[in-house]
Amino acid sequence: MSVFITFEGPEGSGKSTVIKAVQKHFEKETEVMVTREPGGIHVSEKIRDIILDEDSEIDGITEALLFAASRRVHLTEKILPALEDGQMVLCDRYIDSSLAYQGIARNLGFDTVMEINKIAVENHMPDLTLYLKLDPEIGLSRKKTNDVEHNRLDNEELDFHKRVVLGYNKLSELYSERIVTIDASEPLEVVIESAIDQITTFIKSRGDL
Amino acid sequence: MSVFITFEGPEGSGKSTVIKAVQKHFEKETEVMVTREPGGIHVSEKIRDIILDEDSEIDGITEALLFAASRRVHLTEKILPALEDGQMVLCDRYIDSSLAYQGIARNLGFDTVMEINKIAVENHMPDLTLYLKLDPEIGLSRKKTNDVEHNRLDNEELDFHKRVVLGYNKLSELYSERIVTIDASEPLEVVIESAIDQITTFIKSRGDL
Repeated sequence: MSVFITFEGPEGSGKSTVIKAVQKHFEKETEVMVTREPGGIHVSEKIRDIILDEDSEIDGITEALLFAASRRVHLTEKILPALEDGQMVLCDRYIDSSLAYQGIARNLGFDTVMEINKIAVENHMPDLTLYLKLDPEIGLSRKKTNDVEHNRLDNEELDFHKRVVLGYNKLSELYSERIVTIDASEPLEVVIESAIDQITTFIKSRGDL
Repeated sequence: MSVFITFEGPEGSGKSTVIKAVQKHFEKETEVMVTREPGGIHVSEKIRDIILDEDSEIDGITEALLFAASRRVHLTEKILPALEDGQMVLCDRYIDSSLAYQGIARNLGFDTVMEINKIAVENHMPDLTLYLKLDPEIGLSRKKTNDVEHNRLDNEELDFHKRVVLGYNKLSELYSERIVTIDASEPLEVVIESAIDQITTFIKSRGDL
């Protein structure tokens, strides 16, 4: 069944684990594609390398433009073909990440980042977004325990992550018809069950199940 | 004297030669910086490589986002510091190229490209723009005689170049207070003289000469 679901939340909210479990569950019923930007597409990978390069001379607006370009390549080359093929697409972060991180936490201006992203995704918004809501201090401490990579974005302070969570909370109010909030401080099994329930309810309501 | 001048026109309109002559003339009076995107800045060069890569899976909107990102890096890292240092900046192509090439000739939508570029340059528009106007057939034939490089953008057809010129003509009407049109079919010495005259008139009118 062709459905576009995105997963959002701060660092350490358990998105990847939840996505894997959701994939396993729905694979019994339909073809499922799990993806995240840059998504293995040559151009997107090259754009992402520029953003993550610690020596890059880029400011917030340049970063937002590059993220939007990478998002569009990922959308046109990977997400749209899978949806046209009738697949369930589970995407780890999408437009709300830019709005929460750049638009709100980095204070670039919600409207500016929204404008850039609207152009990049045109009318291709997710059908459903699951927001894994978590206290930023818990999220950061979980993240640091598991941290294997180090890049420019990880250097941000706790304050920044607090603003990210405030951003997500604001988004979940603004787009309450699309974004469903799940309490990610619950045990992982509970979070996974909630995610599967929410998706099942959504696709039933569309008449796909 | 701090002044930001851009040069626009279709392929083969002689921009580079005219810019060199203008630079030589004004260097007697002030410090002059000649530049063009990507301008030797690491990040911009990498973005430009992506755009020009013939294997890139990018559509028009992605291209416009990437050009805008490259433009912003060039602006913040090269143009603005030179202007703050009191230099005359002569820039080969800027926002009008995106509007004429992507917005009009590629039919991406003038408003879309304008929106992306407005975000990228904020309020940093050129003080003066010289548009070297030339029949696209003359321009293309001049260009082909001198051609040493070959890239994705050079593969476009004459039809495309005709639309570029129509685009520039429209821009010169829309922004008649900023864009001065020079007939680039005249002999080179005449074109150069016109360019120097126009710039001299402009900076005199600002009280800088």
